[in-house]
Amino acid sequence: MKGQATIDALLRDFDASKPRALARAISLSESGLGAPLISALYARAGRATTIGLTGPPGVGKSTLSAALVRKARTLGKKVGVISVDPSSPFTHGALLGDRIRLTEHFTDADVFIRSMASRGHLGGLAGATADAALLMDAFGFDVVLIETVGAGQSEVEIAELAQTTIVALQPGSGDSVQVLKAGIMEIADVFVVNKSDHPMANQLRREIRSMIEIAAYGAWVPELVATQALTGDGIDELWAAIERHAVYLNESGEIERRRREAFAHQVRHIAAGRIGDLVERALDADASIDGDPYAAAARVLRSLGIRE
Amino acid sequence: MKGQATIDALLRDFDASKPRALARAISLSESGLGAPLISALYARAGRATTIGLTGPPGVGKSTLSAALVRKARTLGKKVGVISVDPSSPFTHGALLGDRIRLTEHFTDADVFIRSMASRGHLGGLAGATADAALLMDAFGFDVVLIETVGAGQSEVEIAELAQTTIVALQPGSGDSVQVLKAGIMEIADVFVVNKSDHPMANQLRREIRSMIEIAAYGAWVPELVATQALTGDGIDELWAAIERHAVYLNESGEIERRRREAFAHQVRHIAAGRIGDLVERALDADASIDGDPYAAAARVLRSLGIRE
Repeated sequence: MKGQATIDALLRDFDASKPRALARAISLSESGLGAPLISALYARAGRATTIGLTGPPGVGKSTLSAALVRKARTLGKKVGVISVDPSSPFTHGALLGDRIRLTEHFTDADVFIRSMASRGHLGGLAGATADAALLMDAFGFDVVLIETVGAGQSEVEIAELAQTTIVALQPGSGDSVQVLKAGIMEIADVFVVNKSDHPMANQLRREIRSMIEIAAYGAWVPELVATQALTGDGIDELWAAIERHAVYLNESGEIERRRREAFAHQVRHIAAGRIGDLVERALDADASIDGDPYAAAARVLRSLGIRE
Repeated sequence: MKGQATIDALLRDFDASKPRALARAISLSESGLGAPLISALYARAGRATTIGLTGPPGVGKSTLSAALVRKARTLGKKVGVISVDPSSPFTHGALLGDRIRLTEHFTDADVFIRSMASRGHLGGLAGATADAALLMDAFGFDVVLIETVGAGQSEVEIAELAQTTIVALQPGSGDSVQVLKAGIMEIADVFVVNKSDHPMANQLRREIRSMIEIAAYGAWVPELVATQALTGDGIDELWAAIERHAVYLNESGEIERRRREAFAHQVRHIAAGRIGDLVERALDADASIDGDPYAAAARVLRSLGIRE
């Protein structure tokens, strides 16, 4: 554990708006040591707009992120970007290849970019990402953009964390409909058809429109925006859709419901992460693991003092 | 909970090799009620060869599965297939569209096909899939083939469950290298380049070969097989690679290490699932959730009687 003095020094640097303090705070959280920082900084967060951006590999998420950052900067907003990289559960290393598209913002002090590996976090990806988003928010960023890849669980977790979730799809990819099937319809607040100059772009838009029409949405029906992130085409429209969604969230009171859910989600992950560690230790200590796995699991739980 | 009489009747039908009993047993496990069944049947399992098959959407996993089932049937082997479908966390329904390619085996009593939704399971997908694989094994299937999609966490979990993991990739898809990056290199025992008639097939094979050469593998270096699952080309070679891997596992003793790891993995998931439920209940009961999420999580853990 870091000593209280270290934490205090870090909090002072954080107060002085030193970017290195933010970077260190996120690193501490990634290592599972962020609790005292989060506890100290929690009250300051809650002002940032959090945007989730997800979609299959190759859709151009990094280019879309870069374009959104550029747009936000022209509006004078400070932007934090969390890029959740696919990464090995074995090496725990984040791959930085795609981040190259964000390099134009590397020298901008009002843009903070952080890549996170998608595995190997205490409390899971959601926990580490939630911590990083909260720290960026508390640091004073107006917009926190969380970019994540995949057709798995991670983007659903991001949707539970972000206020507005953008799902990007690309034309002419067999993936798109499969991605739409894979539980993505429900998490999208805004759909983006990127690479809108592609000959199949209109077909994909039609497909998404029909799926939107069939689906039983509530008060907010997802918007559909066509972009060409490389040229910047459609980015203004995308930003306008994000703002309309923000207005909806505030006027309907939905924003409060989302905040409560995100909070519960994070509590759940922190608790699960802590318990996971205890289970690992109990498993390591239980030399007599045999019989069936259910019996073994019950034994592990009993050893933790858990009343079932 | 199901009464003991119900369980006993189910076990009798299971003993009588009634496929409906297997189907019901898997359903009970999916609902989180499988513990007594697994406990009763655990000793009978352990004879089946478990094969994991994963890869990005569109690579032709269902066609490959169908071809592998056909091959195994010509060798007189009984085959159970677990198809892990992408599915909504909201609807909890498995999509059956792709399963159409397996229909030729629907009337074969020695082939049992089960689709599972990838979310909404107590103890997670890994728990439900592990239970289903164990039940198929105990029922007497010689081969259990677990097919799963995604570039997320699920295929890593499948790799921890299966004895041999096949990673299928398709030529001419930008996904392939991204998939290789995404922690997939490490889980593959056999790589398959499907759609080997594609003009880009040779390029993909070269890419995979270079990645294999760079990576630091242990005693087993992944094999690379080119297939055209639709025509059956290369399936004999794929099966031979699977058999060589099985020989390696047995002769090196690696099979025992994998079994122990799979067991620990399952225990971990069962325990985590049970604890997850308790955390949900504590969260529901804790009306005073406020402050920061770490403080709230600590309170939830204390309420469960967990000594940290």
